[in-house]
Amino acid sequence: MNDYRFLKACRREPVDCTPVWLMRQAGRYMAEYRAIRSKTPFLQMCKTPELAAEVTLQPVDKIGVDAAIIFADILLPLEGMGIGFEFAANEGPVIHEPVRDRAAVEKIKIIDPDTDVGYVMEAIRLVRKELEGRLPVIGFSGAPFTLASYIVEGGGSRNYQYVKSLAYNDPETFHLLMDKIGQVVTVYLNAQIRAGAQAVQLFDSWVGCLGPGDYETYVLPHTKKVIAGLDADGVPVIHFANGGSTLLHLIEQAGGDVISVDWRVNLDDAWTRIGEDYAIQGNFDPVALFAPVDEIRRRVQEILDRAGGRPGHVFNLGHGILPETPVDHVRALVEAVHELSAR
Amino acid sequence: MNDYRFLKACRREPVDCTPVWLMRQAGRYMAEYRAIRSKTPFLQMCKTPELAAEVTLQPVDKIGVDAAIIFADILLPLEGMGIGFEFAANEGPVIHEPVRDRAAVEKIKIIDPDTDVGYVMEAIRLVRKELEGRLPVIGFSGAPFTLASYIVEGGGSRNYQYVKSLAYNDPETFHLLMDKIGQVVTVYLNAQIRAGAQAVQLFDSWVGCLGPGDYETYVLPHTKKVIAGLDADGVPVIHFANGGSTLLHLIEQAGGDVISVDWRVNLDDAWTRIGEDYAIQGNFDPVALFAPVDEIRRRVQEILDRAGGRPGHVFNLGHGILPETPVDHVRALVEAVHELSAR
Repeated sequence: MNDYRFLKACRREPVDCTPVWLMRQAGRYMAEYRAIRSKTPFLQMCKTPELAAEVTLQPVDKIGVDAAIIFADILLPLEGMGIGFEFAANEGPVIHEPVRDRAAVEKIKIIDPDTDVGYVMEAIRLVRKELEGRLPVIGFSGAPFTLASYIVEGGGSRNYQYVKSLAYNDPETFHLLMDKIGQVVTVYLNAQIRAGAQAVQLFDSWVGCLGPGDYETYVLPHTKKVIAGLDADGVPVIHFANGGSTLLHLIEQAGGDVISVDWRVNLDDAWTRIGEDYAIQGNFDPVALFAPVDEIRRRVQEILDRAGGRPGHVFNLGHGILPETPVDHVRALVEAVHELSAR
Repeated sequence: MNDYRFLKACRREPVDCTPVWLMRQAGRYMAEYRAIRSKTPFLQMCKTPELAAEVTLQPVDKIGVDAAIIFADILLPLEGMGIGFEFAANEGPVIHEPVRDRAAVEKIKIIDPDTDVGYVMEAIRLVRKELEGRLPVIGFSGAPFTLASYIVEGGGSRNYQYVKSLAYNDPETFHLLMDKIGQVVTVYLNAQIRAGAQAVQLFDSWVGCLGPGDYETYVLPHTKKVIAGLDADGVPVIHFANGGSTLLHLIEQAGGDVISVDWRVNLDDAWTRIGEDYAIQGNFDPVALFAPVDEIRRRVQEILDRAGGRPGHVFNLGHGILPETPVDHVRALVEAVHELSAR
């Protein structure tokens, strides 16, 4: 089954209507998700293939999306790299010992994905089986810079002071760190593809803190190497650089098949900048899901108009769904995309 | 005295070398500032003209900048608007009752700057006297959207869920709020000009959360009206939209004399987009102040190269100095700008 609407759009082939999936479509805005989450700690959910698969599938029927994305956290590979972390209550991830010098970088291990994060592969296999060819499943990983940010900053960050300082003060160590993370991301995504992922997305969630010169020097070579190292024959690679609207001329040099853009740029401008050799994904502002349904529909129409009916548009948000988002508005968004784009 | 290097650059006149000042140049990275701050609560510092003036002047000799910017907090006008707030320890500003509906917006008062924030004007007068024509002093205010964000969100925000929701669900009330804030900003900046401010800067610190369509609908008309309402004959107006690199084609429609850009865009690209009728301010990444001095100098040279010696460049950071920044690196930056740009 390779004629899914979503995969066809990734390959820039004509489709009956624009496919749509939503970043963080399996998440706290859904009562079904909260029901599981209230009984199970977050990391345990990720590490239990049956639960991860169940959560992955929740939005499929409920919301009507055109692809499932495996439920996982981008920090999962860190454990196998020898970097301990936890999710502190209301504080997000906390890395026990932030990596800030050569010695710490040298200690980082390259994971064996099938043993270190084998539960993700098992969840992918379960989801594939469960979907029985109804919809494709997307695998994903954090991109090297985003993972480096967590590892060096020690968690979320406002200014990225430590990770940038490492790059500026000890570029050799920074590049070694990025190279090691890049190797991890490559084997991790390849394992997901072997397990059955029919597309993969690289999330560079924090790269928007960099200017164009720094992106080119410190990030682009590593992301490019990861994408080149994927055994992705027939498996579209989606590259999402959050806050990267000013970096699009560089991001397109990294390769892949689909570039995912946030809402800070008009979709047609973005597509012009990356060129029509790429499919494009995006770019509805997730906060606009709090708008009335008629305003949501107006905004969907505007994005579809900017896509202009050209093959190669995957509708998505510009970032993840927020926890308090009304679930009926999410459903209305998906319906609007299908209805307003029907050929 | 109207031939200061800084004011000449704002007017796009030739200068002997590129003028430089730094957002948050009076702040926690300086021991002299911390000495005062350790004895006085932050808001009391702002409200005591002698202390505000002293802190304003600290970086003038210590760092060698080409302009002083009055020490104040952008939330100071809120008190006179009838909106109570405080600075909670380590949490930033907390608005006691966030404004989220029509009734709350209708209650907002337009301030009388000379009584409600008269201490700011007094501090400006003291700084003018103290500087005795050595350097110009810059006044400033938060821009309407940034103040609205604080007022509606109730403090700092990650996703701007409440302020955007208000705009999408009750645009009339949102515009009323923005209009009232706009009136406050206008009278506040005009009072600063009367008190002696020789340039004024509008800080739209949080506007980067908006896409181009929303900026045009919800922000541009209000910022434009503020700038048009300033009695700024001969007083340059600087407009800083943090994270606004994708909005430059709209920002330039707001008017003013100088557009200040962050580091996420190359200075020459930004200048091309806003057009050479504007002077440009920026755009050194504040985190790059943690780099070694030779890397700081390399980055200064790159920005100067991009400015290309054209009249109308004011060197600045792309956002405020961070508290842990080494003070000798800040001094090295200023020296590098002067030395490497000397005509």
